[in-house]
Amino acid sequence: LLPGVPPESANPAFEAELAAFIDRHQAELLQIDDSLGLVMDAARQSVLAGGKRLRPTFAYWGWRCLLPPGALGEPLLIRAAASLELLHACALVHDDVVDGSDTRRGQPAAHRQFAAAHRDAGWPGDADSFGAAGAILLGDLLLSWSEEMFAAAIRGLPEVRAAAAMSQFDLMRTEVVAGQFLDVIAQARGDFDVAEARRVIEFKTSRYTVQRPLSLGAAAAGAGPDLLAELARFGRALGEAFQLRDDLLGVFGDPARTGKPAGDDLREGKRTVLLALATHAANRPQRAVLEQGVGNPGLDAAGLNRLREVLIDTGARAEVERLIVESAELASEIVRAAEIRPDAAHALHELIGVAAHRSA
Amino acid sequence: LLPGVPPESANPAFEAELAAFIDRHQAELLQIDDSLGLVMDAARQSVLAGGKRLRPTFAYWGWRCLLPPGALGEPLLIRAAASLELLHACALVHDDVVDGSDTRRGQPAAHRQFAAAHRDAGWPGDADSFGAAGAILLGDLLLSWSEEMFAAAIRGLPEVRAAAAMSQFDLMRTEVVAGQFLDVIAQARGDFDVAEARRVIEFKTSRYTVQRPLSLGAAAAGAGPDLLAELARFGRALGEAFQLRDDLLGVFGDPARTGKPAGDDLREGKRTVLLALATHAANRPQRAVLEQGVGNPGLDAAGLNRLREVLIDTGARAEVERLIVESAELASEIVRAAEIRPDAAHALHELIGVAAHRSA
Repeated sequence: LLPGVPPESANPAFEAELAAFIDRHQAELLQIDDSLGLVMDAARQSVLAGGKRLRPTFAYWGWRCLLPPGALGEPLLIRAAASLELLHACALVHDDVVDGSDTRRGQPAAHRQFAAAHRDAGWPGDADSFGAAGAILLGDLLLSWSEEMFAAAIRGLPEVRAAAAMSQFDLMRTEVVAGQFLDVIAQARGDFDVAEARRVIEFKTSRYTVQRPLSLGAAAAGAGPDLLAELARFGRALGEAFQLRDDLLGVFGDPARTGKPAGDDLREGKRTVLLALATHAANRPQRAVLEQGVGNPGLDAAGLNRLREVLIDTGARAEVERLIVESAELASEIVRAAEIRPDAAHALHELIGVAAHRSA
Repeated sequence: LLPGVPPESANPAFEAELAAFIDRHQAELLQIDDSLGLVMDAARQSVLAGGKRLRPTFAYWGWRCLLPPGALGEPLLIRAAASLELLHACALVHDDVVDGSDTRRGQPAAHRQFAAAHRDAGWPGDADSFGAAGAILLGDLLLSWSEEMFAAAIRGLPEVRAAAAMSQFDLMRTEVVAGQFLDVIAQARGDFDVAEARRVIEFKTSRYTVQRPLSLGAAAAGAGPDLLAELARFGRALGEAFQLRDDLLGVFGDPARTGKPAGDDLREGKRTVLLALATHAANRPQRAVLEQGVGNPGLDAAGLNRLREVLIDTGARAEVERLIVESAELASEIVRAAEIRPDAAHALHELIGVAAHRSA
């Protein structure tokens, strides 16, 4: 659960909604065939074994910008907000296939789980292909289920508000895939700069993690265009801070807290603002270190430390910290000026602190 | 378009709806970034370059079981029906990644298109990984879009009918992925029998291609539980005939008409009823031919012909033809007895003929 933010009754409710949804579909799939228990185990782990529940939390506080706790329809909004975690689980499962990542939240990634099940069962054929197939299908199931859960909940709200929330949900799903494409294309091209890295962030993270969930909750509560525009500005600023912190944690974070091996972003050659800044500022020997190390899957601990030194010595790390502070301050200003309920303003300030300064 | 079935105004309308939807999203994505043109080219090809439009056609005739042509809401139903093609495009794009298929409808499969674009651009890194990543993301986009298009159309219908149609759509999406899982698991296990192959068909094809689309259209038109149960029986029978014909075409069909290289099903080791019957009936030398040839990606034309001979000599091909006739006759009986509009009964009879006896 998201630390440091007053969740009132929302966070346990997200977990309960997700668990009930998964239980219902587990019964449905096991009725089709026992062997689908394999799928449900992976679905359960990808949805219920941790996660900060950032998107549901933002959706909830978007709603609360306009409405007091316990307002009519809040249980439906909480259910719709929780459904965003099914979408996110799809994104992570498919992302791990695309990146060939071994772990997720400290556990084997879904495609590795399926491959392990194949090996344990002693089946003939290629366990890794089975793993990829299983994870692609699992992601499809999670994506369908996200929409099923969202639509069933949201259509209980007044029609105009439901339609407005649905259209934010539609934009969210198109934009996150567009952002992932931009990321994959930037990575394939090999050339990238700070502006391009920030653009990937805008679509892959800011809009997806902060802006659309917030707007979705606010739209469901009946927000007008002015408030939606302010929340969009807030989301962009906070989303950027969130992603920049993520990039720092991917390189300098404590694996015991982040649940991901340190340095995987560098081994994968992930195109971050941090890396773009370092590349831009590097002298010749520093550039050579970057070129040899970044995107090298076999990079060892010593090589990783040399890269970290370059990221520090070029001033890139400090510049990213500065950008985080700048974005967080902009987000704070927007909240102070926005015409929203004081308890929501308080929670959004807390969320700024968490997103910008978290260690996990 | 589906040959031999009176489409009245429906089929051109499906194409127009899909083209308009793709055009609108093309504009949206190009506004984000020019490089996303790559994605839209693949989306356009996967949705608009052919296809029999079976699922929209069944959805349309499900609706027409109760309502005359031009009834109130028909344009919305046609739009909702067309959205099933976006879901189907996702299934095909992801299936081709999972199966490593090179072509689809006579064109390079989506992951091959992305890989070719990578090579043409001279980007560094692995073109095939880029191709798989692009196709996984494209499928996700198509799946989201299917739901977006479906939900936006269906919610214009009276609430109870919209909810009933939505719940068929939800079942359809869960069942098709469940069916694909059963298929992948059966393939991984290596052991399978006729009963298991028919079970995969039920979920992967009968329900997905016929039963749910029909039920969805009928539910949108206000069908009660008795009619839905009859249409489900019809769908199961016709879906089985459809899939059994598909299996025969995959082995004995003319590639110029099917758009798929002949024998790919055998090279992939696809677990069909045809193959299960042959395995069951084979003598020792025939069994050796099957074991050596099925699932061998390097199988040449001579090897393929030896397999075809075994499928004929064991009586498997004739038995599958018999099963098709049996299923088609059952489907016809159900239509004759059902309380549906005569023009819909006529169209469903035509559809039985097409599904059971088509050559493409």
